[in-house]
Amino acid sequence: MGKQLFEIVEGGGVTTPKGFRAGGLHCGLKKTDRHDLGVILCEVPATAAAVYTTNLFQAAPLQVTREALAEDGMLRAVLVNSGNANACTGAQGDADAKAMQANAAAALGLGASQVAVASTGVIGELLKMDRVNAGIEKLPGRLRSDAQGSDDFCQAILTTDLVKKVSCVTLTVDGQTVTIAGAAKGSGMIHPNMATMLGFVTTDAKIGSPLLQGLLREITNVSFNMITVDGDTSTNDMLVAMASGLAENNELTREHPDYEAFAAGLLHVCAELAKAIARDGEGATKLIETVVVGADSNEAAQAIAKTIIGSSLVKSAVYGADANWGRIIAAVGRAGQPVNVGTVDIRLGDIVVLEQSRPIPFDEEIALEYLKGDTVAIHVNLNMGSGQAKAWGCDLTYDYVRINAAYRT
Amino acid sequence: MGKQLFEIVEGGGVTTPKGFRAGGLHCGLKKTDRHDLGVILCEVPATAAAVYTTNLFQAAPLQVTREALAEDGMLRAVLVNSGNANACTGAQGDADAKAMQANAAAALGLGASQVAVASTGVIGELLKMDRVNAGIEKLPGRLRSDAQGSDDFCQAILTTDLVKKVSCVTLTVDGQTVTIAGAAKGSGMIHPNMATMLGFVTTDAKIGSPLLQGLLREITNVSFNMITVDGDTSTNDMLVAMASGLAENNELTREHPDYEAFAAGLLHVCAELAKAIARDGEGATKLIETVVVGADSNEAAQAIAKTIIGSSLVKSAVYGADANWGRIIAAVGRAGQPVNVGTVDIRLGDIVVLEQSRPIPFDEEIALEYLKGDTVAIHVNLNMGSGQAKAWGCDLTYDYVRINAAYRT
Repeated sequence: MGKQLFEIVEGGGVTTPKGFRAGGLHCGLKKTDRHDLGVILCEVPATAAAVYTTNLFQAAPLQVTREALAEDGMLRAVLVNSGNANACTGAQGDADAKAMQANAAAALGLGASQVAVASTGVIGELLKMDRVNAGIEKLPGRLRSDAQGSDDFCQAILTTDLVKKVSCVTLTVDGQTVTIAGAAKGSGMIHPNMATMLGFVTTDAKIGSPLLQGLLREITNVSFNMITVDGDTSTNDMLVAMASGLAENNELTREHPDYEAFAAGLLHVCAELAKAIARDGEGATKLIETVVVGADSNEAAQAIAKTIIGSSLVKSAVYGADANWGRIIAAVGRAGQPVNVGTVDIRLGDIVVLEQSRPIPFDEEIALEYLKGDTVAIHVNLNMGSGQAKAWGCDLTYDYVRINAAYRT
Repeated sequence: MGKQLFEIVEGGGVTTPKGFRAGGLHCGLKKTDRHDLGVILCEVPATAAAVYTTNLFQAAPLQVTREALAEDGMLRAVLVNSGNANACTGAQGDADAKAMQANAAAALGLGASQVAVASTGVIGELLKMDRVNAGIEKLPGRLRSDAQGSDDFCQAILTTDLVKKVSCVTLTVDGQTVTIAGAAKGSGMIHPNMATMLGFVTTDAKIGSPLLQGLLREITNVSFNMITVDGDTSTNDMLVAMASGLAENNELTREHPDYEAFAAGLLHVCAELAKAIARDGEGATKLIETVVVGADSNEAAQAIAKTIIGSSLVKSAVYGADANWGRIIAAVGRAGQPVNVGTVDIRLGDIVVLEQSRPIPFDEEIALEYLKGDTVAIHVNLNMGSGQAKAWGCDLTYDYVRINAAYRT
């Protein structure tokens, strides 16, 4: 085993890093009484970074957050509502997102540009701003620095998600304990290119905004951008990171001896959240992990891994615990990447089903047992080069259809 | 109305053009007693053309057919089995495809290179050649020049399809009646790039093989290549056309005064088959037609139309009769094509839901009624240029999942 660069904090959340409080409440955007408005507050100005959906139609809050970050790369808070995406809502939507920012800033005693905003939910309907504003008024009283605060926030960002998604690690930088935590929501319209979800990372590490931005993008490419639920890319999704610096380490740089540990910890948090989103994809009953090795390049491996994980036929077969590797090789062959059609190996977990592109007899009973598990790994070796990638997704089930056949009603 | 270039032949099929007989029977590849082996025979050498899947893993019969056509562009027969794709079956699969060709040629008194072969069904299992060969022996006795022959053939090529897919038109060339007919099968792994299905076109027109090939490719790009059921591209699919020349028209050229009529007739046959495949997509309850106009180019319009029709979220919403246009605009925005985010109009049938990218209030009851119909049209106008395209697909339903969760079992 390699050196342990970080430790997992069981029960940790976005309020675990020093300097962060969080909270959530029900303001009335969701039809149920579940939380639908949440906030994370940093007690000091936090260096910050964000990545955004690649969808050309970007929801109003994304532009507001982009402008807030452009000012000086610093944030004090991020306000999130669920139940309404504030997307395709025209000038009124822009004004509403600005009003959310301004009102949250006023309630928290901050400047407007210190507040990021995010929204998730139905597209094309105006926010009920009276409800949002009444909720914002109450939010400061709900802020907590304990696990309940993190929990309330996690609850407030969910839409069709079934479970809260949170991850937390600690590591040592300059002898100081640094904590990194994240919270996220899925769970439809989940597809590559930062078109995945809402994600929020807090850390008490001292790290400059430009470096945090660069690292966040690199890590997004191998975590959130490698999951897909249904191939659809949302208008709203973003990942925001805030670093309070209260761990009092020397500022991290790429040359810092503990930079590698910090990057590994951040990657762990993001990958755990990404996998949690995939596992909790709409209607999903299991997580599918696709590992592609031996490709011409990492990019080719990524494209192939994502094509497999995005195949409705592969996803349906996994749901049915059917070892239908023909659909896997068909996905490999249509990914638009260089493939030697005579040298492909495929394993389902440890069960070899194809070697040098030839079917290998396997025990259907053992395969059935394996595929009935809650995590299914698909390994593909192209035996061409050293390119490799991992991608995550979920099975396609009756419930995906049920959920999406009547989302608005 | 423009000039009527062709007439639809109700009840017509692949045996309607002069010179063609067809038949089908059950040889034992399917578990039910449905036909699983079929043949079309032309009584004279037919000029021929074919297009093939773009999947890198091409099934054994495709190579055999490619070689047969490469010889002299002529065919006398095409033999098809369903129930087994003969794909990813290695050297034995290649030998089996060659044996199917040779045995059919012997049974029909032809040269091997006059016979094309095609297969569809499960990937990665060897053909039960004893059953195939026994079936081939009986096939000559089942050939008929009437509607029953066409019907038997159509039945023999189906897998999970629910209905036979056939189309037939007549038109006049040099004062002679020319007939064009086609048969096809779907109905999963249906996605652009001739990765769609098996299709067979017969005509009695006199047309050279190179021109037929060029025309077939052009028409495939705006018919079969514009449908998607699930975004998966099969290893097996091909479209084969045979022209007997028995209509005794002067040979068609691009300059021939009736070329336009022939092309229009062939397009009609291919588009009807393509739409029939989409409507009969696995588990589908309705046909979705997407029309994109006002794009920068036809290519951009095609990409956007196919992204919309391929969106699991759009497909689920149509299944649920939910006028969730947010998912349509999200698909437009992630298609990777130039889009002006402020000028998009969207209609569902005649119901305007978005104008200049702004939501237009509409009557939900009327929209619900419309979306409950068996054909749903999605119109998108980008208001940018003159590029346009049509694409066809189907809704995503519980039954798609049911069918594909246990296809092999």
